[in-house]
Amino acid sequence: MALTLEELARVCGAEVEGRPDCKINAVNTLKSAKEGDISFLSNRHYADVLSTTKASAVILTKDDLDKCPTNALVSSNPYLAYAKVANHLYPKTKCNGGINANVYIAATSRVHETAYISSNVSIGENVVIGKYTNIGPGCVIEDNVSIGNDCSLIANVTLCHDIVLGDDVTLHPGVVIGADGFGIAQTNGKWLKIPQIGSVNIMDDVEVGANSTIDRGAIEDTLIRRGVKIDNQVQIGHNVIIGEDTAIAGCTAIAGSVIIGKRCQIGGASAISGHIEITDDVIITGMSAVANSITTAGVYSSGIPITENKVWRRNVIRFKQLDQIIKKITKRLDER
Amino acid sequence: MALTLEELARVCGAEVEGRPDCKINAVNTLKSAKEGDISFLSNRHYADVLSTTKASAVILTKDDLDKCPTNALVSSNPYLAYAKVANHLYPKTKCNGGINANVYIAATSRVHETAYISSNVSIGENVVIGKYTNIGPGCVIEDNVSIGNDCSLIANVTLCHDIVLGDDVTLHPGVVIGADGFGIAQTNGKWLKIPQIGSVNIMDDVEVGANSTIDRGAIEDTLIRRGVKIDNQVQIGHNVIIGEDTAIAGCTAIAGSVIIGKRCQIGGASAISGHIEITDDVIITGMSAVANSITTAGVYSSGIPITENKVWRRNVIRFKQLDQIIKKITKRLDER
Amino acid sequence: MALTLEELARVCGAEVEGRPDCKINAVNTLKSAKEGDISFLSNRHYADVLSTTKASAVILTKDDLDKCPTNALVSSNPYLAYAKVANHLYPKTKCNGGINANVYIAATSRVHETAYISSNVSIGENVVIGKYTNIGPGCVIEDNVSIGNDCSLIANVTLCHDIVLGDDVTLHPGVVIGADGFGIAQTNGKWLKIPQIGSVNIMDDVEVGANSTIDRGAIEDTLIRRGVKIDNQVQIGHNVIIGEDTAIAGCTAIAGSVIIGKRCQIGGASAISGHIEITDDVIITGMSAVANSITTAGVYSSGIPITENKVWRRNVIRFKQLDQIIKKITKRLDER
Repeated sequence: MALTLEELARVCGAEVEGRPDCKINAVNTLKSAKEGDISFLSNRHYADVLSTTKASAVILTKDDLDKCPTNALVSSNPYLAYAKVANHLYPKTKCNGGINANVYIAATSRVHETAYISSNVSIGENVVIGKYTNIGPGCVIEDNVSIGNDCSLIANVTLCHDIVLGDDVTLHPGVVIGADGFGIAQTNGKWLKIPQIGSVNIMDDVEVGANSTIDRGAIEDTLIRRGVKIDNQVQIGHNVIIGEDTAIAGCTAIAGSVIIGKRCQIGGASAISGHIEITDDVIITGMSAVANSITTAGVYSSGIPITENKVWRRNVIRFKQLDQIIKKITKRLDER
Repeated sequence: MALTLEELARVCGAEVEGRPDCKINAVNTLKSAKEGDISFLSNRHYADVLSTTKASAVILTKDDLDKCPTNALVSSNPYLAYAKVANHLYPKTKCNGGINANVYIAATSRVHETAYISSNVSIGENVVIGKYTNIGPGCVIEDNVSIGNDCSLIANVTLCHDIVLGDDVTLHPGVVIGADGFGIAQTNGKWLKIPQIGSVNIMDDVEVGANSTIDRGAIEDTLIRRGVKIDNQVQIGHNVIIGEDTAIAGCTAIAGSVIIGKRCQIGGASAISGHIEITDDVIITGMSAVANSITTAGVYSSGIPITENKVWRRNVIRFKQLDQIIKKITKRLDER
Repeated sequence: MALTLEELARVCGAEVEGRPDCKINAVNTLKSAKEGDISFLSNRHYADVLSTTKASAVILTKDDLDKCPTNALVSSNPYLAYAKVANHLYPKTKCNGGINANVYIAATSRVHETAYISSNVSIGENVVIGKYTNIGPGCVIEDNVSIGNDCSLIANVTLCHDIVLGDDVTLHPGVVIGADGFGIAQTNGKWLKIPQIGSVNIMDDVEVGANSTIDRGAIEDTLIRRGVKIDNQVQIGHNVIIGEDTAIAGCTAIAGSVIIGKRCQIGGASAISGHIEITDDVIITGMSAVANSITTAGVYSSGIPITENKVWRRNVIRFKQLDQIIKKITKRLDER
């Protein structure tokens, strides 16, 4: 599909510099772009490649325009403009109804005729699957699950019993929704499992990355609100509530009964302790440990990035005695 | 199933306050409970909801009794009492024997007639599956696996060849037992894989959370002893031995050849280095790094929770020079 | 298969001490070995078991020879010598061609007659599968995937559309290659997904551990070069490039657009921030946070191992005020 730069400018609300009738049919990086490609510059890290790009057009800010050797779309937010252009050039394909080979669907379940059930899928009792929803190969859908319209379960996804998905939910391969939460009570040194009788409610426009897991509630439902975006290998414990439009990067671990507000951004490989609350608009940088509630919007961090091993070893020893060392120094200062 | 409060008191060893003939048919949270529900109070965090609960009964300690607006079960351990009540109200359903659609079972394997094999399951050669064991949809069981009685592999679980499971083992979706350990030897800058010829032995009453992985031993077996409880996305390396009744929270990484004692509690998102030993009754709080053996029972921690990003940046710079700074200060103190 | 010690010495380039005609048919640990077994000593941790081993032979260094109660293979690198011996005693079995039950293969796909497709496998359109490649049970291979020769996808692996695998690639159960990268752009507090149009290119002799995930590129391909070894539950973001013979231990999280050099060793449970570059021959110890590029080969570390909880609590408080404390101390020193 070839489009003119002018059409793409309209799609993303940018200004054309150069030839508005220039034909674009693909996106590419500044470095690899060739004729017919559009690229973008949003990360200063890649600024020096701009002057040598072979792209037919580049999306960039006004400030970078003078270094641009080709046509441009000028935008105050090139990354967002690129996102809009890319969605226009690569539209999501609509699912075609049908059922492929080796599928098991219990007789009590209802699959909309426009939905597609791929090969080796297993669907239990009383399941409802909405319009244009795609259930990819190897997915397992247990009893009493309800799936809305325009969802996509890519492959090998597991939805445990009684889960509810809204519309436009995308679940990447290996996702598990609704496994039992880690609810155990100690009795004479042994563990007694607590029945996990809640479910998981995933609202519209949520995306969950590969091999992420979201546990069912102990009593009430785990709740993922509209527009939440979850990366790969994220673990979300039972009874967690995540507010609208919050984004959670890969390998983050969220313990049980955590409540996270709207529009938060949780950096990758972070860990959030159980039973705490994080207010709206909180940004947590990668590999942070959150042990207490956060009541004020802002940017929070923990973790100490690497140093040379030799230096690190000495600093660790000091850290392990930090309180003692500071007490000793303070005492010596006081004595003088 | 409606039961009287008196019956439930007997189940959990609590004292009834109020009407012993009060009918209970479900559990619920203090906040959402309605007539016929029983709730519990064990976390101080939720104490102020007690006075307004609509539950027909609440399990609580003597100390909270005066704030309780309804019938009560008084227990010194309300969480454990709740666990017992919930297990009584929501008994595990017994598996019905049978084989569903699209199942492959090699001719040399023996499945007990009371076991259930769900749709799209693959079972290799010489597998033995015990009584009332449930193999959920999409599970893969490779050659020579032995599975005991009353086990449940929920869905999309993989058991690699020669694995042994005891009785009452529950494996949640996406669990992988017996993949090769990460055994590689360096030779001229390249890696030579070391055959992983051990297996995994999982004893009775073990539960493993969604997408967790337990590697097969390099030579001898990886061993998970009776009563061990493992949460989601936990990684357990080759040759690890975990003692009875130890509980491991989500996203914890345990490197190869670690030996962990009995009744330990490992907090979520922790990492344990290879070839170390942790004695019995050790508690490790969440997001800790364990680099050396622990020979004394107790509570251990590492990791530094978040601060505001601005403050954190300054502290990190100081940490990276900590040893130098302390040396300099000490020198200045000595000079006076 | 019984072999003489002399033959095994030739396989691993070691010197025989004792009887060259001694028959060996299995490997074992020093502790559990019995007649006919060969063992090895490479970790000082296990040195005191040597004198009581019942092994028929032990691979060790010259230095340990005097404590060895049996025949020996003397090598300067016993671990590597063991790896060679074990590979010789336990050769990889060659895959037999065939297609098992409940398999779906789209008509446009070509599977080599020597490849084996196990039960409940789903293969989309235009897939090519090479010689002696084994596709294990429950695997999903989407459209336009190309798989080379002698690969093994153990079980329940997902390859998303357009992925390319070279020869001798091993993917353990639950691996997901080519899920969408976490590319989202913010617009009025909501997230707009960016189409992920790149793919993943995995070159020869790569191994990926259970439940690891490697995302497809946003525009260009994510690239895993020859000889890379990846452990379990590793997450690799979009556009990452990993150099030849780099090894990455379990539960490591690598954010998008990271470039890692050749022969690096990344310790387990580490986290690497996006858009940074790590040069060749870098060693990162376990549970490290890498926030900036590394331009010099060497050993790097971060993270602070556990102390007793009581001590840790006090040190954490001090750390959170570290910059202030040091400023105050310095001021007091200056005032004198």
